[in-house]
Amino acid sequence: MLVKNRLLIPGPSQVPPEVNAAMTRPIIGHRSGDFSKFHEQVAQKLKKIFQTENEVVILTGSGSAAMEAAVSSVVSPGDAVLCIVTGKFGERFAELAKVYGADLTVMESEWGDTYDLGAVAKLMEEKAFKLVCATHNETSTGVTNDIKSLGELCTKHGALLLVDAVSSMGGMDIRTDEWKVDLMVSGSQKAFMLPPGLSFVSISPRALEVINQNNSTNYYLSLKKAKKSQEKWSTPYTPNVSLFYALDAACDMILGEGLETVFKRHNLLAKACREAVKALGLKLLPKTEEIASSTVTAFFGDVDTEAVRSLLKKKYGFSVAGGQDRLKGKIIRIGHMGYMDFGDLIAVIGALELSLQEAGYQVELGRGVAAALKVFAEGGMN
Amino acid sequence: MLVKNRLLIPGPSQVPPEVNAAMTRPIIGHRSGDFSKFHEQVAQKLKKIFQTENEVVILTGSGSAAMEAAVSSVVSPGDAVLCIVTGKFGERFAELAKVYGADLTVMESEWGDTYDLGAVAKLMEEKAFKLVCATHNETSTGVTNDIKSLGELCTKHGALLLVDAVSSMGGMDIRTDEWKVDLMVSGSQKAFMLPPGLSFVSISPRALEVINQNNSTNYYLSLKKAKKSQEKWSTPYTPNVSLFYALDAACDMILGEGLETVFKRHNLLAKACREAVKALGLKLLPKTEEIASSTVTAFFGDVDTEAVRSLLKKKYGFSVAGGQDRLKGKIIRIGHMGYMDFGDLIAVIGALELSLQEAGYQVELGRGVAAALKVFAEGGMN
Repeated sequence: MLVKNRLLIPGPSQVPPEVNAAMTRPIIGHRSGDFSKFHEQVAQKLKKIFQTENEVVILTGSGSAAMEAAVSSVVSPGDAVLCIVTGKFGERFAELAKVYGADLTVMESEWGDTYDLGAVAKLMEEKAFKLVCATHNETSTGVTNDIKSLGELCTKHGALLLVDAVSSMGGMDIRTDEWKVDLMVSGSQKAFMLPPGLSFVSISPRALEVINQNNSTNYYLSLKKAKKSQEKWSTPYTPNVSLFYALDAACDMILGEGLETVFKRHNLLAKACREAVKALGLKLLPKTEEIASSTVTAFFGDVDTEAVRSLLKKKYGFSVAGGQDRLKGKIIRIGHMGYMDFGDLIAVIGALELSLQEAGYQVELGRGVAAALKVFAEGGMN
Repeated sequence: MLVKNRLLIPGPSQVPPEVNAAMTRPIIGHRSGDFSKFHEQVAQKLKKIFQTENEVVILTGSGSAAMEAAVSSVVSPGDAVLCIVTGKFGERFAELAKVYGADLTVMESEWGDTYDLGAVAKLMEEKAFKLVCATHNETSTGVTNDIKSLGELCTKHGALLLVDAVSSMGGMDIRTDEWKVDLMVSGSQKAFMLPPGLSFVSISPRALEVINQNNSTNYYLSLKKAKKSQEKWSTPYTPNVSLFYALDAACDMILGEGLETVFKRHNLLAKACREAVKALGLKLLPKTEEIASSTVTAFFGDVDTEAVRSLLKKKYGFSVAGGQDRLKGKIIRIGHMGYMDFGDLIAVIGALELSLQEAGYQVELGRGVAAALKVFAEGGMN
């Protein structure tokens, strides 16, 4: 029976028709004046979404490329780096720091929890770090970490702060400058509503100084080169021209809807998802709702989550994610980022109810959807 | 706040990405051998969906064009024509018969009801009709009329049977040959999942004889010319090449899913929609559920239906239809034809619940969705 493929994993996310249409424009020369003008225009829009006055460079590569570019551009062998790990993508920073020879300190929390601010503060009193790496929105656990407090600590101790906002930027309220983030990283395929293939890094003046003094061995993923090229609205290597078109269209959609409204929509979708999950007797993975992400909801329950995911996909057309690494086979993650609306959320909860029931879980049909509907009714969708 | 435009009117309906992709193929010359081969291939697929051995001609024009082509190609001034009218599209046949000078008899039922078979049988005993026109699926009221019984009557009395299946063909089980329909008309923009612009007429040998003897004054909409051209896999005038590509892709989707499964899906969606509407205390327009359509559900209730429709569209993104003519402002019609699945239906019911509530109607949130979910749970979606 026909079911539509409905992509609700925590990225890549759905691409709006307007963005797909933008990608069909003819390719132009990436060294042309036309492309330069376009590059400048897109970069200015990105800065608004990043809420920053810093330059945001655009790399042709996915989120991990931007993470590596940032780490490799500021870390030299022996540099003290603190990685705050609350899940798989926090671990990625630690792996990168190791690859580039850092004197690495890892502060790890239980998956599903946020970091321990007191412990981080204590550690930073005891040791001087060149760089602190943290994840804003931990896609693997659905936890959002407080970045503002880390920004204060880093400013106090003179450390650079590098933040992964791959799965939150464009959907959540991220104040790059106000929070004093030196290097803010994001990617195209999440709340930016684009196919994978582009990533972004905002660079503070403080970070740029370090980058320019640092001898990075990375050739393609060099922020020094990217930043230098961008001063002339160019790129060191061939950029993905089609995705630049797409990015421009997506930024127009985000800024056209209005940042406040975009954030409110993501908050509403997330709250509706959480209320539905709880009404069905399932448990949220995040320790508290205060740290629960607005772009991805992770949950579990007394049911074979892989059987539920398989039913959701094969019978109802909904792709949702399972757990990664130590959470493999133990949780379900629903992405509600970017091009997602009321209808998507209600539909996936309906499908979840039927899939749970078919997997042998006791469900009073309609209960999850009712809880979600109440959130939208009270939340004010205007 | 971003909401997706979700088209759930009873046509035009949603177009699948596969069909949109097919339309991007380069145009080829419509008098080329390549196009002829393609035309033949598409026409063969159409015959399977029409469940007929008769030729199905393809016209570049919407459903009303095919209705006019059929009427004008068999009716000469003074010919006795019986029009069975159960709603707006039944009336269209009567208007066309009048335009072409028929000696017209109209048998009209209350909107929301089907025709009176006994009365039609009696009338046909009393008077010899050259042509009987009937609507299979009355889009304006959500009523499906029994065509098989009309086929038997027409065969008995030697009348031609012309049927409008614009909003049902491709979604409902329509047995053109078994029901002895001489001229079966459909259009591209409903269950065929295409944009508007093409229409189809199947022509029985008996109808062809009449057509060839008839002096139609219609130039563009001539079934005689269309049929004659089609014998060489050609068209009398320039066909919509892109929509032919689209039609081929759509037929592949329908035949690939399997006619039985397509019919079952439409039945399930319709039943889920009706159960939801009833659970919310609203009333179905069709007199009985036996005559309720599988492609469109019409209903009303103690609420301002136009206010509800406006909320559905502006706040939640769902376009549903209101009433036409005498039903204007009195009913809501939800289309569930063609490229529609479980997720679409659950989402629109959720949005309907919130919109009803906001329009002042008493709603126990989740009740409609629960009723729909039960239908899918019991209906067997495999």
